[in-house]
Amino acid sequence: MAERSNSEEVKLLGMWASPFSRRIEIALTLKGVSYEFLEQDITNKSSLLLQLNPVNKMIPVLVHNGKPISESLVILEYIDETWRDNPILPQDPYERTMARFWSKFVDEQIYVTAMKVVGKTGKERDAVVEATRDLLMFLEKELVGKDFLGGKSLGFVDIVATLVAFWLMRTEEIVGVKVVPVEKFPEIHRWVKNLLGNDVIKKCIPPEDEHLKYIRARMEKLNIKSA
Amino acid sequence: MAERSNSEEVKLLGMWASPFSRRIEIALTLKGVSYEFLEQDITNKSSLLLQLNPVNKMIPVLVHNGKPISESLVILEYIDETWRDNPILPQDPYERTMARFWSKFVDEQIYVTAMKVVGKTGKERDAVVEATRDLLMFLEKELVGKDFLGGKSLGFVDIVATLVAFWLMRTEEIVGVKVVPVEKFPEIHRWVKNLLGNDVIKKCIPPEDEHLKYIRARMEKLNIKSA
Repeated sequence: MAERSNSEEVKLLGMWASPFSRRIEIALTLKGVSYEFLEQDITNKSSLLLQLNPVNKMIPVLVHNGKPISESLVILEYIDETWRDNPILPQDPYERTMARFWSKFVDEQIYVTAMKVVGKTGKERDAVVEATRDLLMFLEKELVGKDFLGGKSLGFVDIVATLVAFWLMRTEEIVGVKVVPVEKFPEIHRWVKNLLGNDVIKKCIPPEDEHLKYIRARMEKLNIKSA
Repeated sequence: MAERSNSEEVKLLGMWASPFSRRIEIALTLKGVSYEFLEQDITNKSSLLLQLNPVNKMIPVLVHNGKPISESLVILEYIDETWRDNPILPQDPYERTMARFWSKFVDEQIYVTAMKVVGKTGKERDAVVEATRDLLMFLEKELVGKDFLGGKSLGFVDIVATLVAFWLMRTEEIVGVKVVPVEKFPEIHRWVKNLLGNDVIKKCIPPEDEHLKYIRARMEKLNIKSA
């Protein structure tokens, strides 16, 4: 089904430590699509990025045979529709819709809420942690009886929710506030182990040491201190 | 293609003046799907709404044969995949992806930016108007040479962007700040006329008088005064 040929050109403008960029690498790797990765300096945007994504001016941007696509969830849908091997969205219409719903939930609710920690201390910070946990509890419940959010195998929502598994959960290590304690979230911890047992995930997430160093520097820049 | 039968049950929990609820009505009407509309009081949420959408607790919620779906863009995708007559997303993968991109753009950028007017006056308000216009200019350019954002006929982005045509542009009448002046946005004004010439749109947007009255009351509540 995949229309791969030598003449096909796939480029990804991304940034190695971004969860939004990494999710595109996971999907392409899962599909067996070769691509050229163009690392971007997000503090000093390249003219290529501004030309390919004049609306949002943000990574990731996938360029397929010269045509640019941005917004990571939109890119994931495009990848699934273009290279049909190893589908990441379920085939059943209701399950597809729920995958889209939970993916939006990760980006628009979990991520947005967790990011509110910036500039907060004391009780205000505790309130952000509580609100984030309330949201994570929905994912916890979704995982009961499943190996992955996609069911038996890695799917769309798993790819999106690597943001929780390897960004939020690595950040809590650095900041020293356990947002996702194993006692409260045993299913999420089991799922992270399943993710780590997946070859594509292992290959596509940022190497831990370097990533932790990056997160630490970012936390300092955002003035988020250890608890 | 449509699997319509007498036993099929489609309900919509919505609110008559909400652009997010109306877009679902437009899509269902375009597809010829009969549905029961359950008007919701958004200031006093019903136990039915809380039960069907425990995550977001918001309208619209589409209930298809007992299964609830929320988030208007997700619902629109579901409708297009379930009832295949009169497709609203283009068939070409790149055009599909661009339709998804512009739809997110309307909700996450135009709507979010325009709503920042709440609580602002003077220069701050002017800055919000300017920022909203900068975003609308992207839609203006998209419309050049087209009858609709979907091309020759009403499509996914048109349905989503009724938010601009009949909410933002009716609100500017009330508030007295011309956000979308015809001199600057001739294509958008031409497109609004095309929308008003479409039978489904005419049937599915809120009646103007009642709607203006509602917007006026809402503006007062949000303390947004006329300029």
